[in-house]
Amino acid sequence: MGPVTSLSADPFAARMQTREVKWWGWGWDDRSRPIEGFPVLWTYLQQRLKIDPHIRRSVPPIGAVQIPPSLLSPDEISELEKLVGEGNLSLEPRDRVSHAVGRSYKDLVRLRTGTLLRAPDAILFPEDEGAIRAVLEFARRRRYAIVPFGGGTGVVGGVEPLADGTYAASLTLDLRRMHRVKAIDEQSGLVVAEPGIRGPILEEALAAKSLTLGHFPQSWEFSTLGGWVATRAAGGLSNRYGRIDDLLVGLRLVAPARFLDVRALPGQDHGPDLKELVLGSEGILGVITEVTVRAHPLPAARRFASRLFRSFEEGLAALRSMARKDALPDMTYLSDEEETRFMAAGRGIGPGGAGGAAGLALKLLGLRGYRIEQGSLLLMGFEGARDRVAHQRRRALRLARPAASLGAGSAKRWYAERFEIPYVRDSFLDHGILVDTVETAASWSNALNVYHAGAKALQLALWEEGGAGLVLCHVSHVYPDGASLYFTVYGVAREGQEVAQWETIKDAVTRAILDAGGALSHHHGIGADHAPYLGRVVGEDGLLVLRALKRELDPEGIMNPGKLVRAR
Amino acid sequence: MGPVTSLSADPFAARMQTREVKWWGWGWDDRSRPIEGFPVLWTYLQQRLKIDPHIRRSVPPIGAVQIPPSLLSPDEISELEKLVGEGNLSLEPRDRVSHAVGRSYKDLVRLRTGTLLRAPDAILFPEDEGAIRAVLEFARRRRYAIVPFGGGTGVVGGVEPLADGTYAASLTLDLRRMHRVKAIDEQSGLVVAEPGIRGPILEEALAAKSLTLGHFPQSWEFSTLGGWVATRAAGGLSNRYGRIDDLLVGLRLVAPARFLDVRALPGQDHGPDLKELVLGSEGILGVITEVTVRAHPLPAARRFASRLFRSFEEGLAALRSMARKDALPDMTYLSDEEETRFMAAGRGIGPGGAGGAAGLALKLLGLRGYRIEQGSLLLMGFEGARDRVAHQRRRALRLARPAASLGAGSAKRWYAERFEIPYVRDSFLDHGILVDTVETAASWSNALNVYHAGAKALQLALWEEGGAGLVLCHVSHVYPDGASLYFTVYGVAREGQEVAQWETIKDAVTRAILDAGGALSHHHGIGADHAPYLGRVVGEDGLLVLRALKRELDPEGIMNPGKLVRAR
Repeated sequence: MGPVTSLSADPFAARMQTREVKWWGWGWDDRSRPIEGFPVLWTYLQQRLKIDPHIRRSVPPIGAVQIPPSLLSPDEISELEKLVGEGNLSLEPRDRVSHAVGRSYKDLVRLRTGTLLRAPDAILFPEDEGAIRAVLEFARRRRYAIVPFGGGTGVVGGVEPLADGTYAASLTLDLRRMHRVKAIDEQSGLVVAEPGIRGPILEEALAAKSLTLGHFPQSWEFSTLGGWVATRAAGGLSNRYGRIDDLLVGLRLVAPARFLDVRALPGQDHGPDLKELVLGSEGILGVITEVTVRAHPLPAARRFASRLFRSFEEGLAALRSMARKDALPDMTYLSDEEETRFMAAGRGIGPGGAGGAAGLALKLLGLRGYRIEQGSLLLMGFEGARDRVAHQRRRALRLARPAASLGAGSAKRWYAERFEIPYVRDSFLDHGILVDTVETAASWSNALNVYHAGAKALQLALWEEGGAGLVLCHVSHVYPDGASLYFTVYGVAREGQEVAQWETIKDAVTRAILDAGGALSHHHGIGADHAPYLGRVVGEDGLLVLRALKRELDPEGIMNPGKLVRAR
Repeated sequence: MGPVTSLSADPFAARMQTREVKWWGWGWDDRSRPIEGFPVLWTYLQQRLKIDPHIRRSVPPIGAVQIPPSLLSPDEISELEKLVGEGNLSLEPRDRVSHAVGRSYKDLVRLRTGTLLRAPDAILFPEDEGAIRAVLEFARRRRYAIVPFGGGTGVVGGVEPLADGTYAASLTLDLRRMHRVKAIDEQSGLVVAEPGIRGPILEEALAAKSLTLGHFPQSWEFSTLGGWVATRAAGGLSNRYGRIDDLLVGLRLVAPARFLDVRALPGQDHGPDLKELVLGSEGILGVITEVTVRAHPLPAARRFASRLFRSFEEGLAALRSMARKDALPDMTYLSDEEETRFMAAGRGIGPGGAGGAAGLALKLLGLRGYRIEQGSLLLMGFEGARDRVAHQRRRALRLARPAASLGAGSAKRWYAERFEIPYVRDSFLDHGILVDTVETAASWSNALNVYHAGAKALQLALWEEGGAGLVLCHVSHVYPDGASLYFTVYGVAREGQEVAQWETIKDAVTRAILDAGGALSHHHGIGADHAPYLGRVVGEDGLLVLRALKRELDPEGIMNPGKLVRAR
């Protein structure tokens, strides 16, 4: 290991960890992106969804959110506080509310309508592995459910306290105070960090050594290293750096009955790889207390390109050809026709938009037979050493030839503003719009089939459940053998029945995607929402094997009940 | 899935599967490579090891090998034959001998000296998954141990029947008759095949579709797809195509109590990945009955380059720099100073050798201060699309600049003859030479430390156990964060005590490597030989977790006892 860098006293880290986030929506408390800032898109949506623009669903004050009283007695609270240290336990309503759910549409609706049925009985903020061990030991004796909590940005019900009456209470372990970088091995490009570190803090520490993790999920500012591992996350540059699965080389897991310390080795043949048991385990086995990941040299150059295909099918074929021929851009974002229209209406993504030169380019394209309203937009990014970027870009663009060039602007803008997009969602909810996402993956030979099956099921279910709807799709993670498919769904929310309405739609599309041979999830995970379908993809025996594993690590079944698989 | 290609009636496949292999040594029965064909190397070895060239250890006739009688009764045999089908069960001494051990030095010594303590009580050749299910069911009831058998080329005691007296018998399941390619999905580059298919047969089927698996371990002609997965194999082009771990996307596993069918999806987030439980499971959980792997386009171009560094340390630094800077050749083979001298004495590898132009080049190098006797040889290979090869080669060679060029010949020759090398080993054994390999992996920051620790321990142990010795090392698998280290050891065998002599040496080097922080194995696996050390790398709790997994899939503990981890 190289020199040890500790960030515990770092002002940036401290600022990041304490800056207030919304309890009712996405991101920083002082930041919002109203849809009214995108007037063309807003008009377009009103027309497509037949929305009454005067509808307003306001966010209630936090005091109006009803949560059940904590089940913990004063004695239990003081015992717990002794284990985690003074000031590291909270019973504050604001903390209990903001740890009660994640950040899916269902979650936001429930927060905004104040209909939380459950909340953690206490939130603990352990500062080290020792405190976690002590809490788990105590929880086993008292039969407390334990919910590990990273950034809380998940969208499949992974952090919701679902302990039933057989548990004495449900404690949420928020790992935000374990956010130190413990060591950076510059020679090997390895970084050892605590699980609660968020994307920007980790990147800052790495950048000081001219390194980057290269892992940028859309939740990057708020989600954590431990959370990425527990949920098997994928970032926007996964084409180049891989998923967190590919970046992870070592970890420590404190489970109620076992302790795993998987050493970081570049390659090993030590039987079944124990870190793979922890990847995607979603807190049901134990608490990840340390992670070692591969970091890469900071890219010297970054370039972008945007292309317009005549159809999504043509765009998919080009992506496939790039992936098969070693010519894949480091970032690819291919929108289907519906999403391309949506983005055109939003003028790219940001308010800067595709005006000026880009607008002129679009006009000229029209003369050549390409129409953005009927096309499929591909945004590409390339990064690394200068000559590699030039070479890779040349090879990719050659395979994108059937498409028309839109220059670099759209891709560059999308890249710059990609963390802003989730803010707009809250504005949609303000207007009574249903908006959520559904994601899957399929092999190239099955991708169009899964795409059509998913889109059709969504359109039909939207129609049956709410009337007009809009189904967009894009591909943002590409593999040699296939790709992810990411649907965004807009509809009119049925006031008072938002959750039931969405659950009906979600069930229909999930079944359709599985019937077509798509993945149950590509990177959102299983959580509580997808758990009922897990047997369909891993088989009944697969569930039994996962359960046996859980029993070995967590014999009392206290870890994150209700998620992934049942304890028995 | 694309069009289905079945090879069951293919004459090449049939020829491959029936061509006779040596029962006592490496490879085809009709092929050998005596050391006398490399006169300079042979003289060099005689000097270094102080060998009497007149010593001969001949191979006895197979009839002289003593094996215990089969424990199966005629009734049991006929019941088993019913399950696998007529002609698919063998009690022949030749079959029992050749399924009794793998292909490590210890194995070959025991075969040649006729000192096999155990042999399978019967060898079954199932033709389909149904037969395997039936056999396992029967074996559970009768308490037969089951040893799955692929190519039998492993070197860590993975196929040896180690069932103790608590088992009624030990059956070896040789999967060679399950060698069909079941489907090739050309669009996605996916191939579904049975586990017993060998490298060349699989590559032939893929080549017909302009595809390659890109997996070429040195045992490639004889080892099998299922064996690669079960042992977590790595091939000589792993820099480009990855290990089998990276190529595997789906599989079926028939275990005594469970059945796993992991679907082939390009990316998925379905909780802990069940195929990772099977990867490296070495037959202790069940029998792999089908494998889906990623195949890649056949390379249009292939180029080679060889460079001579002034030291192994300088060569390692260059490899690290290539790996960190995205400039890694698709094949790299870096020899330390001792191995470089050995290769120079062997004039490259083949009998063609480094004569002629290469000899002249070496002479000229000498004038520039590079001496092959003190240098470190790096062989490189590049393959893929023409412009990619050119680009990647240029970038790699730039980072190899401290080295002197030796042209392309040495690398090209090594690549062409890489499957021939193991044949020479039998000739060493004929001359009473101890020869085996030890492999590990380490991060870049720890690679030299592990190298020195391993080399020193080997030299010391060789000296104590036999006098003169020769320890060579090379790096053939490179990762962003580190590399493999592969030692080859030559010494003078102590006649009659060869196994004990080697076990003492192996124990010393294994402890030294683990103390230094290296991997217990990089790609040979655990088997019986490394099992006593597994707790040191996965921890006592890691062993308990693996045991729990085994209990779930194989409650009676009949699968490959004595390997990887104990059943309880």
